[in-house]
Amino acid sequence: MLEKLKKEVWEANRALFHSGLITLTWGNVSGISHADGLFVIKPSGVEYAEMSPDDMVVVDLNGNVVEGKNRPSSDTATHLELYKAFRGIGGIAHTHSTYAVAFAQALKEIPCLGTTHADHFFGAVPVTRLLTEQEVDNAYERNTGMVILERFKQVDPLTMPAVLIAAHAPFCWGNSASDAVKNAVALEAVAKMAFDTLQLAPDIGELPRHVLQKHYERKHGVNAYYGQNKEQ
Amino acid sequence: MLEKLKKEVWEANRALFHSGLITLTWGNVSGISHADGLFVIKPSGVEYAEMSPDDMVVVDLNGNVVEGKNRPSSDTATHLELYKAFRGIGGIAHTHSTYAVAFAQALKEIPCLGTTHADHFFGAVPVTRLLTEQEVDNAYERNTGMVILERFKQVDPLTMPAVLIAAHAPFCWGNSASDAVKNAVALEAVAKMAFDTLQLAPDIGELPRHVLQKHYERKHGVNAYYGQNKEQ
Amino acid sequence: MLEKLKKEVWEANRALFHSGLITLTWGNVSGISHADGLFVIKPSGVEYAEMSPDDMVVVDLNGNVVEGKNRPSSDTATHLELYKAFRGIGGIAHTHSTYAVAFAQALKEIPCLGTTHADHFFGAVPVTRLLTEQEVDNAYERNTGMVILERFKQVDPLTMPAVLIAAHAPFCWGNSASDAVKNAVALEAVAKMAFDTLQLAPDIGELPRHVLQKHYERKHGVNAYYGQNKEQ
Amino acid sequence: MLEKLKKEVWEANRALFHSGLITLTWGNVSGISHADGLFVIKPSGVEYAEMSPDDMVVVDLNGNVVEGKNRPSSDTATHLELYKAFRGIGGIAHTHSTYAVAFAQALKEIPCLGTTHADHFFGAVPVTRLLTEQEVDNAYERNTGMVILERFKQVDPLTMPAVLIAAHAPFCWGNSASDAVKNAVALEAVAKMAFDTLQLAPDIGELPRHVLQKHYERKHGVNAYYGQNKEQ
Repeated sequence: MLEKLKKEVWEANRALFHSGLITLTWGNVSGISHADGLFVIKPSGVEYAEMSPDDMVVVDLNGNVVEGKNRPSSDTATHLELYKAFRGIGGIAHTHSTYAVAFAQALKEIPCLGTTHADHFFGAVPVTRLLTEQEVDNAYERNTGMVILERFKQVDPLTMPAVLIAAHAPFCWGNSASDAVKNAVALEAVAKMAFDTLQLAPDIGELPRHVLQKHYERKHGVNAYYGQNKEQ
Repeated sequence: MLEKLKKEVWEANRALFHSGLITLTWGNVSGISHADGLFVIKPSGVEYAEMSPDDMVVVDLNGNVVEGKNRPSSDTATHLELYKAFRGIGGIAHTHSTYAVAFAQALKEIPCLGTTHADHFFGAVPVTRLLTEQEVDNAYERNTGMVILERFKQVDPLTMPAVLIAAHAPFCWGNSASDAVKNAVALEAVAKMAFDTLQLAPDIGELPRHVLQKHYERKHGVNAYYGQNKEQ
Repeated sequence: MLEKLKKEVWEANRALFHSGLITLTWGNVSGISHADGLFVIKPSGVEYAEMSPDDMVVVDLNGNVVEGKNRPSSDTATHLELYKAFRGIGGIAHTHSTYAVAFAQALKEIPCLGTTHADHFFGAVPVTRLLTEQEVDNAYERNTGMVILERFKQVDPLTMPAVLIAAHAPFCWGNSASDAVKNAVALEAVAKMAFDTLQLAPDIGELPRHVLQKHYERKHGVNAYYGQNKEQ
Repeated sequence: MLEKLKKEVWEANRALFHSGLITLTWGNVSGISHADGLFVIKPSGVEYAEMSPDDMVVVDLNGNVVEGKNRPSSDTATHLELYKAFRGIGGIAHTHSTYAVAFAQALKEIPCLGTTHADHFFGAVPVTRLLTEQEVDNAYERNTGMVILERFKQVDPLTMPAVLIAAHAPFCWGNSASDAVKNAVALEAVAKMAFDTLQLAPDIGELPRHVLQKHYERKHGVNAYYGQNKEQ
């Protein structure tokens, strides 16, 4: 079932591991087939080096495991809520990368301070509110998804493919599992750049709007001219 | 004698070396067989790449070497005190990893600022007091163990598998030598995250108690649901 | 056409990638043949590991692609302006390396605080002004070149082979594509050193002029005595 | 001539390169045969990966090259002054490692804040004064050696095997070329630890004297008990 998607998700999990963003087993990637109403996700707590495509777990949009000998990632319910609400996305990557986590723990969004950021994220990367005690005690992972959706009421997930969960860590997404991993890599890089910039110039303002617009559209707009084709 | 344990301890020492936490020969791992009343530890000052399982040293709970052609780690007496007092642990890892050392040198505990920390350590990672001149002059390594035990009078070593020795470095422990190494890796990662968070938000408070409880129990509680089984 | 130069530029792009300065596809290197009035540049958005010399794109000094199956780097127009104005240079490297970007985003030049810096850059590395909205909307990449040239009216590009574009990133250049990459590596290293120095001593002054002069000329002056010959 | 020493110095230069402390060709190691009154040093500006033992240069204690097809390191005159004054040392390593340079550029010694430091350096690592304009203009590298010796009038080079040259970088030494490299590695590690500690606790005091004494002697004293023998 979904052999191609399982291989893609497996490869994306391995790419995430080789990106250097992962400590121990802290992170997971999933990918969805909207046609089938199914997504594929990393098994929970398994070492990246020891996984094969067959270890990936297939889950339906009610959150039920429909194939796979392993238990799915403990964050599966969060992935599920994002897939149900963000219909244009094809993959999700979750990491505990250091600088993105530092902003999440500081309860601060990552301000857009330069063109590197603008190339990937259309403005400051938002941070959710903290979950209430009740939200933590019941259906914690599902509620983690819900506070992301609450934060994205006025935000377009297709131009802002990342969020920081307060006191937790980032979730990123994209056109595919592989694209979500690239956004996770970009997020950590721009988080470190913003961190360093704020050490040098604590009161620096955000990138002017016209530069943000230009850089984002150069890569992602209808007249994009970065890369070898518009789909890239 | 204890061939399996010697191999495990040798592998854990090598895993520690490959984790990137080790500079030169600054670090050592041990593992215990409670049934035999013996523990196995790295030899002192030997290069990680040049060790074999047979270079490991077997020590009894009186601190006597009972097998091994090498002198055991100079920190052996510290390991011994921890094994005698913390009966539920199977392995100990000692490193001089950079950010954990920075907190130890700053005489500050590592505050629990997010879920990454809470997944591994149930609250702020404690720091000992400085040793007195007398404690340094006589049985220094044993007294290093004693100030850890003094600090842990009100702390459960099974939910807090790490300590910072003031102006020195961390000791970590776990179910096994391999598990102790994982905790040493986790400790350095959360120390760096806390360091960066404090740069961004010096007055940030600790993670709310209900989130700490949730994350720790999700991985380690009686109803743990992270990983493929409860033992993991 | 220009097989030797294409190979050099390809190798320089790969050297840049292996230097650790590159995240994803953020960076590009070009090299020029002044005799032919042509330069060779990396294709846009292509993975470094997957490129061959034949993927390099040949561009003339009017900015027209004269050979190559790929679209050239989106930054080609910036390279073009630099080649037209800086006649003594043979190659250009553009990166988004972290610490150089941090200074660029902070709108601060990199002060010359030590001899490592002086060995490569004759004084503080300049930062451009921000582009106006009009400059961004029309011929953005060409105008990026123009603000560099504006900043270099009183600066000699042969003794200052680097610039920070405000809120963007560095451009470096040199005698060849390979030399430009070395300057990009040196720039990131001295940017990190300056960053750390400013954390330790925010009010530290610049390196005294006579030391700057000595170190720069030791490597690059007519009586240079670093390396095995004066050309190095 | 001196084949064994040339091989040792070549290996030490390669070990330094693989330590990660070296950017481009910024660094060099030498070793001395006191019996022969000759020392062996890296050639200037040569890539580490491309050197062989035969590329090493043999220099006498008047600073004359007595064997070698390459020009010796541009820092040879500094090495020479140290060998003439510090008769107990066998090797010297010079790097531009990032955190040691940051302290040197900040004109600050590296305070001894913990046992990692005390294990290698008996107290704060000293920093020289800046050279005068006259000292820079004439015999610059020799005068670099002279300001080190001036700073070490009251310091024992055998218990303090490192110095920071103001606004420049560290020199380290040891029993052998290989030992000098280990001290260079230790210096960068403790510099980073001190840097981070000062971010967390700017007013932290130095390590109490009795702990400094204990740790240094545990490794280096007449009753040393670290490692497999006293010579280590």
